[in-house]
Amino acid sequence: MVFKVTVNSAWRATRTLWLLVLVSLSVCICVCRASSPQEDSAMENIVTEKKAEESHRQDSADLLIFILLLTLTILTIWLFKHRRFRFLHETGLAMIYGLLVGVVLRYGIHVPRDISNATLGCPVNASPATLLINVSGKFYEYTLKGEINANEVDNVQDNEMLRKVTFDPEVFFNILLPPIIFHAGYSLKRRHFFRNMGSILAYAFLGTVISCFVIGLLMYGCVMLMKQVGQLGGDFFFTDCLFFGAIVSATDPVTVLAIFNELQVDVDLYALLFGESVLNDAVALVLSSSIVAYQPQGDNSHTFEGTAMLKSFGIFLGVFSGSFALGVATGIVTALISFFTKLRDFQLLETALFFLMSWSTFLLAEACGFTGVVAVLFCGITQAHYTFNNLSPDSQDRTKQLFELLNFLAENFIFSYMGLTLFTFQNHVFNPMFIVGAFVAVFLGRAANIYPLSFLLNLGRRNKIRSNFQHMMMFAGLRGAMTFALSIRDTATYARQMMFSTTLLVVFFTVWICGGGTTQMLSCQRIRVGVDSDQDNSVSPERRSTKQESAWLFRIWYNFDHNYLKPILTHSGPPLTATLPPCCGPLARFLTSPQAYENECQLKDDDSDLILTDGDINLTYGDITVSTDASGAHTKPDQGGRSRSFFFRIKEEK
Amino acid sequence: MVFKVTVNSAWRATRTLWLLVLVSLSVCICVCRASSPQEDSAMENIVTEKKAEESHRQDSADLLIFILLLTLTILTIWLFKHRRFRFLHETGLAMIYGLLVGVVLRYGIHVPRDISNATLGCPVNASPATLLINVSGKFYEYTLKGEINANEVDNVQDNEMLRKVTFDPEVFFNILLPPIIFHAGYSLKRRHFFRNMGSILAYAFLGTVISCFVIGLLMYGCVMLMKQVGQLGGDFFFTDCLFFGAIVSATDPVTVLAIFNELQVDVDLYALLFGESVLNDAVALVLSSSIVAYQPQGDNSHTFEGTAMLKSFGIFLGVFSGSFALGVATGIVTALISFFTKLRDFQLLETALFFLMSWSTFLLAEACGFTGVVAVLFCGITQAHYTFNNLSPDSQDRTKQLFELLNFLAENFIFSYMGLTLFTFQNHVFNPMFIVGAFVAVFLGRAANIYPLSFLLNLGRRNKIRSNFQHMMMFAGLRGAMTFALSIRDTATYARQMMFSTTLLVVFFTVWICGGGTTQMLSCQRIRVGVDSDQDNSVSPERRSTKQESAWLFRIWYNFDHNYLKPILTHSGPPLTATLPPCCGPLARFLTSPQAYENECQLKDDDSDLILTDGDINLTYGDITVSTDASGAHTKPDQGGRSRSFFFRIKEEK
Repeated sequence: MVFKVTVNSAWRATRTLWLLVLVSLSVCICVCRASSPQEDSAMENIVTEKKAEESHRQDSADLLIFILLLTLTILTIWLFKHRRFRFLHETGLAMIYGLLVGVVLRYGIHVPRDISNATLGCPVNASPATLLINVSGKFYEYTLKGEINANEVDNVQDNEMLRKVTFDPEVFFNILLPPIIFHAGYSLKRRHFFRNMGSILAYAFLGTVISCFVIGLLMYGCVMLMKQVGQLGGDFFFTDCLFFGAIVSATDPVTVLAIFNELQVDVDLYALLFGESVLNDAVALVLSSSIVAYQPQGDNSHTFEGTAMLKSFGIFLGVFSGSFALGVATGIVTALISFFTKLRDFQLLETALFFLMSWSTFLLAEACGFTGVVAVLFCGITQAHYTFNNLSPDSQDRTKQLFELLNFLAENFIFSYMGLTLFTFQNHVFNPMFIVGAFVAVFLGRAANIYPLSFLLNLGRRNKIRSNFQHMMMFAGLRGAMTFALSIRDTATYARQMMFSTTLLVVFFTVWICGGGTTQMLSCQRIRVGVDSDQDNSVSPERRSTKQESAWLFRIWYNFDHNYLKPILTHSGPPLTATLPPCCGPLARFLTSPQAYENECQLKDDDSDLILTDGDINLTYGDITVSTDASGAHTKPDQGGRSRSFFFRIKEEK
Repeated sequence: MVFKVTVNSAWRATRTLWLLVLVSLSVCICVCRASSPQEDSAMENIVTEKKAEESHRQDSADLLIFILLLTLTILTIWLFKHRRFRFLHETGLAMIYGLLVGVVLRYGIHVPRDISNATLGCPVNASPATLLINVSGKFYEYTLKGEINANEVDNVQDNEMLRKVTFDPEVFFNILLPPIIFHAGYSLKRRHFFRNMGSILAYAFLGTVISCFVIGLLMYGCVMLMKQVGQLGGDFFFTDCLFFGAIVSATDPVTVLAIFNELQVDVDLYALLFGESVLNDAVALVLSSSIVAYQPQGDNSHTFEGTAMLKSFGIFLGVFSGSFALGVATGIVTALISFFTKLRDFQLLETALFFLMSWSTFLLAEACGFTGVVAVLFCGITQAHYTFNNLSPDSQDRTKQLFELLNFLAENFIFSYMGLTLFTFQNHVFNPMFIVGAFVAVFLGRAANIYPLSFLLNLGRRNKIRSNFQHMMMFAGLRGAMTFALSIRDTATYARQMMFSTTLLVVFFTVWICGGGTTQMLSCQRIRVGVDSDQDNSVSPERRSTKQESAWLFRIWYNFDHNYLKPILTHSGPPLTATLPPCCGPLARFLTSPQAYENECQLKDDDSDLILTDGDINLTYGDITVSTDASGAHTKPDQGGRSRSFFFRIKEEK
């Protein structure tokens, strides 16, 4: 009975699904047709309101196309999950649907558009942000959308519809990327992340810079070659090459990680890849804007200027650390608010506050001239580390689910837009030589990141990053949302257009081929699957002692965090009266949460395995001894998936 | 111990809160100052990108002000809830904070702005949607923002900042109102709504039209008087008066309902008020756009034109029924998708699909020229009635929480913006005579809606709407988000500006005074509080038999819904094989959910109390007899708050 039901409904569902695909696609097309201007005779009395309404309807129709695309993607994802297909991830699927709709829009519909653009012939000597036009006594307000290329001017009037379906690139940075990046920070498995922190930082910072410069240099060689052969149709400076290097250095292995999660691949490999990809998005973003700042005049082709280079480096450091500080600061403010108020009694207020504070991080960073996306990343990590502990269980679920949903929608939107834009973007420059060069450079750049750094890191790590892990990391260097957003941000010049077209192909290739081949690669590299992350501590005694040694830097951080920050910012952690020296008694009593006293005797801590303890470690601060005991206190992992492995016994000796 | 903790933390929280209020406000102001143009010397090389960046930073800062405002509102709401203050609702609070920030922005900051607007002097004979400006060989693209008033042109250059903080009114209709209205539909307590359906429809449709015309006529009298006294500073036509009547007829008793919910006021009163306010938003919206369409030339002052009137009525019917049909259709499609697929295994996909389909309703309606907000309302009701039953319990929670959050944020945003705009809007026209006239007209309009209709309805109802209920409904005619959004949509003419200013005052007054006096009014009118809605059936036998009679129309609908629609669209309801005649056997078997067979013997139905059964009612369809038995099968209300009061026993007689 049960089997029959499943088969029956699956069959039915498949049919319904494809019916829906067809219906929706035709709806898309109908809507596009329907929104074309219907009244030809209305040209004489051009009413502004009518036009604005028409434009609004067109906008709705365009957005509807994307919503329907996402709906189709969701239905197909469900089918794939239902049948356990793993060769194509949801993002890959979204791209395919985007491609299909792009083809339909490009070749299927030829609507002779009402050419309502006018090029003003009169002399204007400035391009102000707001323009008032006086049309026979009536004033119309225009806002600056941006500079467009001279050779694009004809296109603007050529195909209005394809342009309409094109979003302002800033939408990605201001609306779509923030929830994705925040979610990455918020869902970071901190335990494994902190364990491999050193390696992750090396890959993300050093590795991205290496990759950026290797790709930049290789592309410069490629561009020089193209110039000699005569295949270059415009300017292409060294800084452009570096910029290209920066944007394709942001990896986005979401496809790979989804499969890792499903197959329960080794947690350290997961942590390395995820941590690297989360941080290198931020690095690549700041790096690319620093490179743009390096070239203020746009004509210093390849003269190496020490001061400009230094200035760029200064900008990089300033923007990165500023964004970092802002993100962490807002996270801490949120933690403090949720610590001092009893918002947890009203989950709706709590969730709303959490959402608003996280969003304000982004806005504050942008308003201050820092990078909102980077701030949001560190805000997410801080929220997960501190604020999360103060939230009511209901709000913990709500916030997780909310950002999971936002992340899902934004990610699939970007990928389907990516597919669409291959056909609807009007200024593609596909240069075979440049494309081949780019693929080689991307491959070599990734190799120059992973292998040398792994070798160096292995010198310090006793828990070596084995060669099969290195190959897997090399293979998992997919490019995704951040690379796309960075490349579409500015497509004004010939160089940028060529970069954009090439980047699209790089993303398509890596997501489909590398993403699709993950399971094959895993079995080919004989990487362990089916590892229970929470049981991992007890696998090999050799590895444990290794980490214990390598974590010395973080033990210091951890102790500070555990003894001072956690008690101040959250309701977990030991009471401050126990960790601060006695002279700070009144302050400590003021700042300590009443709940902390209840934790005093027996303290559960989620991050206790940051310090990897095989035997007993006794850490002494001022007047108390914290004695950690790994044996006997091994609890089962709780529902939230976070393991509360150890209990700390805090004994006040005074 | 527990008491001490509460007092201690509450005290601490209060202090922290007000500290945060001050800090945030100063942050607001600092940000506004910081975002002013810093480089005066940069005027020579006007780089477009720089300007765009500056504008982006300013936008971020402006949005940040609102986010901080909302944060403050949330914290204060928490404090109020914590201390059980009921005299001021969160929306009232949001308005107060908005007012404060408005005052600061208006009088506190005088930033001499970089006047970067230019008025083109050259002759242009059209106002196209897109404008290309050729500045010494470079092309800049401008998009039409709208027509501005000739006397506003100076203001544009006067105070850039106040204008910057002003949102495009379409933001309300496209971003903020849809989630609010959808949430209203989705959270409608259908059981009590359907019971009082006749009265609700009468109040919402007939009542709103009556109110609109009464207010319109009274205001026309007032305007005529003002003209004679010489207090009228511009044109004010009869259609303007009607338009004003339409926009202030949309009630929004969110404040009152929140208190009703808390105090558990009589469910019928709650249903009447909530149902009326949900539907009359839609009616007022469509009515106002029909009135605008009635006046295409803008100069037929008060000549009554039969054909134009008829056309307006046609538009009203067309738009309303079109939006209704679209909303219901998308709801049904979503129900079908969730019925045929097993999406419930993947909650994220399910929630995302639900969200996207609901959003696409809005976009589809807008793209087709219908009213998105109205479509979204009926989509919400349909989703709650059918799709909700197919969702997994987890997704039921997720979707409810998601829309609850969106509703909360959007509502408070609108109300704080409302407060802000009292000071930052630059074209206020406060005319004391008009304001007094409006308050009187609004009062009389509401009275002309409630009392005569209640009298007429009481002729048909045996469960009379008692006079204290009528007074309460009269009192609860608050004006809110929809009224504000409609009045700010178009502020181009003198008449519209005066309406907008007056509407603001009406909203402030009703939300603060009527909203704040709800508890007093309740006790003054001796309205029962503390009623358990699920126990309500068994209160008075007289009332039950009453409803049984008055529900004859809905019994027909209910039977159709229960026997055909529910089984086709959801997994609940009886199997179709039992309800369809035997000749439709194969079709019925195909369409019936496997789960329905399991329900066959003992069927729980959420809406079974649509038919109010005192004894046994035997309903015969084709070959089966449905026998309902109210006695003995009275189950306890389940966790979801929906009561499954009766069991249906279905006996196949063949």
